[in-house]
Amino acid sequence: MGTTVIAGVELIRKGLAKPVGSLTQMATIRLGRRTENRTPKIKEFVPLEKLENIVFGAWDIFPDNAYEAALDAGVLSVEDLNKVRPELEHIVPMAAVFDSKYVKRLDGPNKKQGKNKMESAEQLMEDMARFKSQNNLDRVVIVWCGSTEIFLEPVPVWADLESFEKGLSDNHDAISSSMIYAYAALKSGIPYVNGAPHMTHDIPALLELAKKNNVPVAGKDFKTGQTMMKTILAPGIKARMLGCTGWFSTNILGNRDGEVLDEPLSFKSKEVTKLSVLEYILQVEKYPELYKDLYHKVKINYYPPRGDNKEGWDNIDIFGWLGYPMQIKVNFLCRDSILAAPIVLDLALFIDLAQRAGLGGIQEWLSFYLKSPMTAQGLYPEHDLFIQLIKLKNTLRYLMGENLITHLGWEYYFD
Amino acid sequence: MGTTVIAGVELIRKGLAKPVGSLTQMATIRLGRRTENRTPKIKEFVPLEKLENIVFGAWDIFPDNAYEAALDAGVLSVEDLNKVRPELEHIVPMAAVFDSKYVKRLDGPNKKQGKNKMESAEQLMEDMARFKSQNNLDRVVIVWCGSTEIFLEPVPVWADLESFEKGLSDNHDAISSSMIYAYAALKSGIPYVNGAPHMTHDIPALLELAKKNNVPVAGKDFKTGQTMMKTILAPGIKARMLGCTGWFSTNILGNRDGEVLDEPLSFKSKEVTKLSVLEYILQVEKYPELYKDLYHKVKINYYPPRGDNKEGWDNIDIFGWLGYPMQIKVNFLCRDSILAAPIVLDLALFIDLAQRAGLGGIQEWLSFYLKSPMTAQGLYPEHDLFIQLIKLKNTLRYLMGENLITHLGWEYYFD
Amino acid sequence: MGTTVIAGVELIRKGLAKPVGSLTQMATIRLGRRTENRTPKIKEFVPLEKLENIVFGAWDIFPDNAYEAALDAGVLSVEDLNKVRPELEHIVPMAAVFDSKYVKRLDGPNKKQGKNKMESAEQLMEDMARFKSQNNLDRVVIVWCGSTEIFLEPVPVWADLESFEKGLSDNHDAISSSMIYAYAALKSGIPYVNGAPHMTHDIPALLELAKKNNVPVAGKDFKTGQTMMKTILAPGIKARMLGCTGWFSTNILGNRDGEVLDEPLSFKSKEVTKLSVLEYILQVEKYPELYKDLYHKVKINYYPPRGDNKEGWDNIDIFGWLGYPMQIKVNFLCRDSILAAPIVLDLALFIDLAQRAGLGGIQEWLSFYLKSPMTAQGLYPEHDLFIQLIKLKNTLRYLMGENLITHLGWEYYFD
Amino acid sequence: MGTTVIAGVELIRKGLAKPVGSLTQMATIRLGRRTENRTPKIKEFVPLEKLENIVFGAWDIFPDNAYEAALDAGVLSVEDLNKVRPELEHIVPMAAVFDSKYVKRLDGPNKKQGKNKMESAEQLMEDMARFKSQNNLDRVVIVWCGSTEIFLEPVPVWADLESFEKGLSDNHDAISSSMIYAYAALKSGIPYVNGAPHMTHDIPALLELAKKNNVPVAGKDFKTGQTMMKTILAPGIKARMLGCTGWFSTNILGNRDGEVLDEPLSFKSKEVTKLSVLEYILQVEKYPELYKDLYHKVKINYYPPRGDNKEGWDNIDIFGWLGYPMQIKVNFLCRDSILAAPIVLDLALFIDLAQRAGLGGIQEWLSFYLKSPMTAQGLYPEHDLFIQLIKLKNTLRYLMGENLITHLGWEYYFD
Repeated sequence: MGTTVIAGVELIRKGLAKPVGSLTQMATIRLGRRTENRTPKIKEFVPLEKLENIVFGAWDIFPDNAYEAALDAGVLSVEDLNKVRPELEHIVPMAAVFDSKYVKRLDGPNKKQGKNKMESAEQLMEDMARFKSQNNLDRVVIVWCGSTEIFLEPVPVWADLESFEKGLSDNHDAISSSMIYAYAALKSGIPYVNGAPHMTHDIPALLELAKKNNVPVAGKDFKTGQTMMKTILAPGIKARMLGCTGWFSTNILGNRDGEVLDEPLSFKSKEVTKLSVLEYILQVEKYPELYKDLYHKVKINYYPPRGDNKEGWDNIDIFGWLGYPMQIKVNFLCRDSILAAPIVLDLALFIDLAQRAGLGGIQEWLSFYLKSPMTAQGLYPEHDLFIQLIKLKNTLRYLMGENLITHLGWEYYFD
Repeated sequence: MGTTVIAGVELIRKGLAKPVGSLTQMATIRLGRRTENRTPKIKEFVPLEKLENIVFGAWDIFPDNAYEAALDAGVLSVEDLNKVRPELEHIVPMAAVFDSKYVKRLDGPNKKQGKNKMESAEQLMEDMARFKSQNNLDRVVIVWCGSTEIFLEPVPVWADLESFEKGLSDNHDAISSSMIYAYAALKSGIPYVNGAPHMTHDIPALLELAKKNNVPVAGKDFKTGQTMMKTILAPGIKARMLGCTGWFSTNILGNRDGEVLDEPLSFKSKEVTKLSVLEYILQVEKYPELYKDLYHKVKINYYPPRGDNKEGWDNIDIFGWLGYPMQIKVNFLCRDSILAAPIVLDLALFIDLAQRAGLGGIQEWLSFYLKSPMTAQGLYPEHDLFIQLIKLKNTLRYLMGENLITHLGWEYYFD
Repeated sequence: MGTTVIAGVELIRKGLAKPVGSLTQMATIRLGRRTENRTPKIKEFVPLEKLENIVFGAWDIFPDNAYEAALDAGVLSVEDLNKVRPELEHIVPMAAVFDSKYVKRLDGPNKKQGKNKMESAEQLMEDMARFKSQNNLDRVVIVWCGSTEIFLEPVPVWADLESFEKGLSDNHDAISSSMIYAYAALKSGIPYVNGAPHMTHDIPALLELAKKNNVPVAGKDFKTGQTMMKTILAPGIKARMLGCTGWFSTNILGNRDGEVLDEPLSFKSKEVTKLSVLEYILQVEKYPELYKDLYHKVKINYYPPRGDNKEGWDNIDIFGWLGYPMQIKVNFLCRDSILAAPIVLDLALFIDLAQRAGLGGIQEWLSFYLKSPMTAQGLYPEHDLFIQLIKLKNTLRYLMGENLITHLGWEYYFD
Repeated sequence: MGTTVIAGVELIRKGLAKPVGSLTQMATIRLGRRTENRTPKIKEFVPLEKLENIVFGAWDIFPDNAYEAALDAGVLSVEDLNKVRPELEHIVPMAAVFDSKYVKRLDGPNKKQGKNKMESAEQLMEDMARFKSQNNLDRVVIVWCGSTEIFLEPVPVWADLESFEKGLSDNHDAISSSMIYAYAALKSGIPYVNGAPHMTHDIPALLELAKKNNVPVAGKDFKTGQTMMKTILAPGIKARMLGCTGWFSTNILGNRDGEVLDEPLSFKSKEVTKLSVLEYILQVEKYPELYKDLYHKVKINYYPPRGDNKEGWDNIDIFGWLGYPMQIKVNFLCRDSILAAPIVLDLALFIDLAQRAGLGGIQEWLSFYLKSPMTAQGLYPEHDLFIQLIKLKNTLRYLMGENLITHLGWEYYFD
C-alpha cells in the first residue's frame, strides 16, 4: 500500500486527483456555536505540514522502484501511474531488515546483512540520518506499511529497555524485524506509527524509550475494510440498546496480504485485533443481558480471483424489544489500499504535529485510524469510531485554544 | 405498533421479557473520568417515572381491545400475548378523530362525529381529562403511533394560533386529524410526541401554543429500519471522508403500513423525511467534492408475503483515495414494531421528565429517536445518530449537574 | 448494444478476444452414448456461417459512426475499442424510421421523412437491397437491438396482412416503428429477430406475411440479467417441488435503457414479459398448493451512478416440507450489453441456418435466448432455460440426422 | 433429520400438513404431446407404495424416542410435534452400531456391543428381520440419515466381498459403522440408500454384494442447501457459455451437523462431494477457455446462533462477451432438515419401486436427489439438476411404456 500513498500524493500535488479519505486534507471542523457557522478546513485550522514539502523514502525486500512496485501491486490503474511515472521511478527502496521467520510465505533479495539485530538497528539509524540529510529535511516520521508478522507471546526481553537492547545484541528470537525498525526510529527521535496488528512498539521496553526521548507513537493496525465497518455498525447497535447473539464475518481477498494471512500464525495476530473490537464497543460486562451470548467469528480467505480488491460479508444476528430477532447482512466490495492510503497520510501529518506540539508517548487521540489503538496502561481502548472522531477533533480544538464541543446545545432553547 | 408497546410493558412488568432497545430501561451513562468507573443505569441516575406506574389508553378507528388488535397486528407471538391477555383485553380504545381524506386506503367504524374540527378537539380534551381522572393520574403524555397522513403544503391557516383556531371552527381542509390531537393535547398542557412523518405540531401555530403553555413537544417520525441504519452508516462514511455517488434504498413490507405507503400521497410525507437525512449528515454544501453528485433514491414496496416483518436493501456507491470506487450492500431483515416500541416508551418517559424539569417547546435532545427531528427556527437538524446520542446523554448530565463528556482525555497522558 | 456486438466480432476475428457467451462459437454438443465421447463444437457440427464472412450494417437515429457510438455507450473499454477503431469508424448508420411517440424520452436527428408509414417501409426495403448489393452478400438477417417501445393494445389493423398494409398507407397509430422494420424485412424475404419486449411481428398480420414468404422469425426480448437468472432459479425450485409465496425483483441501471424504462408506458411492455415468466415455469394451475399465493413484483429503477452496468436484487420466499419457510436472496452485478451481445450473434447465425434449412415462421427452438418466446398458436411457451436448451440441441441433432438425447441411460445398467 | 421425516409423514397422513418438496407425492409428469394435456401426478402414474402403509423404525446412539429426539433437534415447532406426539413416542430406536473413531465429537449410550464387526452386522440383520416380522411388513428399505463419517482412503479390504467379510471378522479399521449397516442390509436383500457423503456401499465389495443379491442401491449425500443451489446455478451459467473464474461458498450452521463438520476429517468427506460438483457440471476439460482458471472454495462454519437453520453465502465471479467480468452473490437462508426430509421419503419410495421392478445395483436415475451420485464404472456422474430430472422422469415413462420426452416439438411447426 505504500506505493498507493506515494503515487496518490504525487497525483494530488499535480492536481490530477483528490485526497479522498483524508481528514487532514479534506475535513472541516466546527468551531463555536452551530449558528456561528465557523467551520474551517482542518488543514487551515491546525499548522500541518504541506503536501508539497513531503519527501518519500522506503525500505523493501524487493529492489523494484516505486513505479514497478505499484504496477505489480495492481491497485492503481496503469493510466494513473503513468502520469507520475518519473516521480515514482525516482524512489528506490533501501535494503530491508527482514526475516521470513516472522512473515511466513514471503521473502525477497533486498535485505541487510547485520551480524545481529543491534547491528541491523544501527544500519537503519544510519539510513534514517542519511535520508534526512540528503534530502535536506527538518523532520522525519516513519509509518509501517509492511506485512503482518506472526503472533508472539510476551517475554521478559520486552519488559524494559535494558533487556531489550541486550536482546538486540543477543539476537533474541522474540524481537521481530518490525521491532528493530521501531527501536531505530525512537532511538533517533523519530515518531513511529504501526499500521499492522503485530505488537512492535506496544511493549514496555519501547514505550519506555518513546517516553524517555519524548517521541510520539501510534498504532496498531490501520482501520480499514470489515473492521472499519464493524466500528461503524456496532456503536449503532449499542447506541440503540439492541442485543446481539452472533456476528459472523468472512473476507475474501486475493493479494499478498491474503496469502500471508492464510498462514495461521500471521492470522492469529490479525484475529486478536479483529475480535477484541466488538467486545470493547459492546461492553459485554456492562450489558450482559444484551451481549453475553455473542458468538463472534472472523474468517479470512485467500481467493485469487479477487486480486487486490477485497470483499467482506457479515451476518449479524440482533434482537430487539422482548428479545425478538432480526438480521443484518453487509456485503462490502472494498479495496484495502484505497482505504488505507489516506490513513497513512493523516497519521504521518498528525504525528508530526504531535511532535512539534511536544506530545511524547502514545497518541490515543489518533485511535480513529486504528483497529487496536494503544492506550495508557490501565485504560480500556475506545473502538467506537464516533467517539474516536470527537476525541480527535476536540484534541485539535484544545491544542488551538478553542472551546470543546459537547453537543449540549442548551443555549438555542432555554437561555 | 401501539399494542406492541403495551403488551411489551405488561410482559416486562411481570418479569417475562426484557425492555431491549430502551435506553431509559437498559442503558448506562458514564460519569466523570474513564478511570472512575461510574456508570449507573440512566434510570438510576435520572428520576424517570417507573414502569409500574404507567397506565395505557388509546384512540383507534377499530373498536377492538388491545388483545384483539395485537393478535391482528401479528407482531408478537400468540404465546406471548396470552401471558398478558387480561391486561390487554382491559384496554378498549376511545372513538377516534379520523378522516380518510388524510390517510387513504384506511377507514374504520370507531369514529367521533364532531360538527366541526374544533368540536372534535373539544371531545378529545374531554377524553384526556376523563382518562386522567378515572385512572387517578398525576400526569399524562401522548405519543402518536398511528398511520402516516398525506403530505400537505403549508398554508396561512398554520401561521399562528389565532388563524389555526379559526380554521378548526371553519373545518379547514389543511388541518389534518393528527393536528387536532396535537392541539387538544397542548391546549390541555399535555406533552405531545409525533412518531409519523406528517407535520402535525411542526407548524408555527402549534409551536406557539406549546410555548405559550410551556409544554414540551418532540417529533417527527420514529427512527427505525432502513433510516436508522442510514444514520449509522452515513456518519461513518463521512467521518472517514469517503465520497458517495449513489445510495439506493428499497424496502419490502407487508403490513398496513406498507399498504398505506403504497399510496403516493402518503409516501410523499415519508419520502421527504427519508431523503433529507443524507443531505444533512453528509453536508453536501461543505463537501461538494465528495457528495455533490450523490444520487439518492428511496423506494417502499408493498409485499404481502413479508407480513409485519420488513426487509431493507441498500446499495451504496462510495469512493476513496483518488476517487477509486467501492460498494456497500446492506440487507436488513427487520421488524418495524419491534424497533419502534422501545422508542415510544423512551420518548414518553423522557418527555414527561422534560415537563417536570420545566422544559417547554421543542426537545431537540430527543432527536436520537427521530427521522426528522424538530429544531429551533434557523437551526439545522442533527441526523448523525452518534451526535444525537452525545446530545441526549450530555443533556441528562447537565440536568443532573454532572460534568459534560468531551472525550478529550488529556489528563490520562499529559497532565 | 449493437456496437458491443460489432466491436466484439471485430476483436474476435482478430484473435484479440473470445466470443464468451456464444453457443454457436463455443458450445459443444454431445452425440450418441455418454461412453462414445463424441462432443464436437456446434459450429463444427452444423453448417453455420463463419464470423469472417459477416458484414454489419445499422440504422440509428444518431448519425455517429460505430466507434463514436460505442464510446458513448461506455460498455467496452476505450483500450479495447481502439484496437478496432478503423473497422468501427467505417460503419455509419443509415437514417432510421423513428417516432418518439413509441419511445418516450428519446429522439435524434438521423431520421427518414416518409410521407406515410408505407413509404417508410419502402425506404427501408431499398436500404436492405442496397446494403446487400453494395456488400455483395448472399443473405441478410435483421436483429432488433433498439429501445423498447410502449405497450400497445391489439387492434383490428393487426389482424391480417391486408388490414396491416392499409394501416401502413393510412399511417395508423397502432403501427409502431419496429413493425415497419419487420414488415420491410419479411416483405424482402429477410429473417427478422426481435430483441425487445414490444410486439413487432408477434401479431397475426406479420406472422401471415412470414408464413407466406416462408421467412423464419424469432422473438421477443433477449433473455439477460435478472430474467435470465429467474429462468435458471425458478426451474430449480419447481424441480424440487418447493413452494413459493413471493418473488420480489428490483433492478438498478443507469444507461439509456434505464431512462426509457423509467417511463411507465415503456415499462409496461417490459413488465408483461418479465412477469409471465414465473407463471409459466411454475405452472401455477398445476401446482396450486405450491404457487397459488405467489406474489410476484418486478421493479426497474433508473440509477445513474451504475452507468451501463446493472444490478439486480431478488428476494425469493420459498417453503419446503410441511410448509416451513426459507429465503433466497440474489444480488447480480451484471452488464446487460455483455450478456446480450452473444445472443445477438447466435440468433443471427441460427436464424440464417433456419432459412437455409427451409424453416419458415416461428422458430420456437430459439426460445433459449428470449424472455417471451413466440410459439405456435395454442401452445404455451417454454420458459425453463434447461428445457429450452434441450429443445435447441435436439433440434440441431434432428436437423443433422443424429439420435435425440433423452438422458434415459438404460443401456449402461440394465441391457 | 430422521424425526423430521417421520413427524412429517404422520402429520401428512392426518391431513395436517403437505408433503412439500416431495416429487412422489406432489409432482406431475407430462405424457405425450404438449397439446394432449396429459399430466397425471407421478403417484397416480407409477405404482408407488402409499404413505398410509409405511411403518418407521430407527437405530440411534441416543435412546430417546422420536418425540424427544424431534424436540431436541429443534427443527419442527413444538406445536406441530404435539399434534403427532403419541405416534412419535411410540417409535423407540434400536441400539446402534457406532464407533466415535469414525464420527468425531459425537458419542452416545445406546450402542450394541458386538465382539467384532461381523457380529455387529449379524445383530443388525436380526434387528431388520425382527422389525419386518413384528410389524407384519412385506418389504423393508433403509436410508442412512446419520452423521457424516470421516474420510477413508481406499484399501484392499474394500476390493471384493470376500476380503470385506474377512475384514468384518478381523475388525478391520477401514470398515466404518455405516458399512456394517450397508452390508447387513444388502445381505438381507434390503435396498440401501446413503444420504451422507462417506463411501459406505460405494466400494467394490458392497456393489458386488448388491449385484449378487440384485438389490437396488443409491447414494451419496442428499442434495440440499448450497450444493443444491450450485447444481441449479452452474448448469445455467454453463448453458449460456459464460465463463467462471471463481466460486466461493461459505456456510454458517449451528446444529450437530455443524459441530461434526467443524472437525477437519469429517469435513474432508463433505468437501470432496461438494467440490467435484462444479468440475463435472462445468466440464472444465471441454471448456478450458471458460473454466480452466476456476478457483472453487467451500467453507463450513459452526455458528451456534443459527441453530438448525443454515445460511449459505456464495460469491460467483463470472465473465461474458470478450471476457468482461460480472458477479453473482447468493444468500440462502435455508433449513437442511426441511430440504432433506422429502428426499428421504422419495428415495425410500422410489428404491422400493426399483426393487419391485427388478432393478438391482446402482440406480443412477435417482441422481436427482444426491450430491455425489453413484454411477456405473467408467461413467461420469451427471450433476446438472435438470438433466437429472429428465433422467428420472424419462425412466418412469420408460418403465410404464410411455414415449420419452425429447422437447423437440417439430410436429407443432413443420409436419
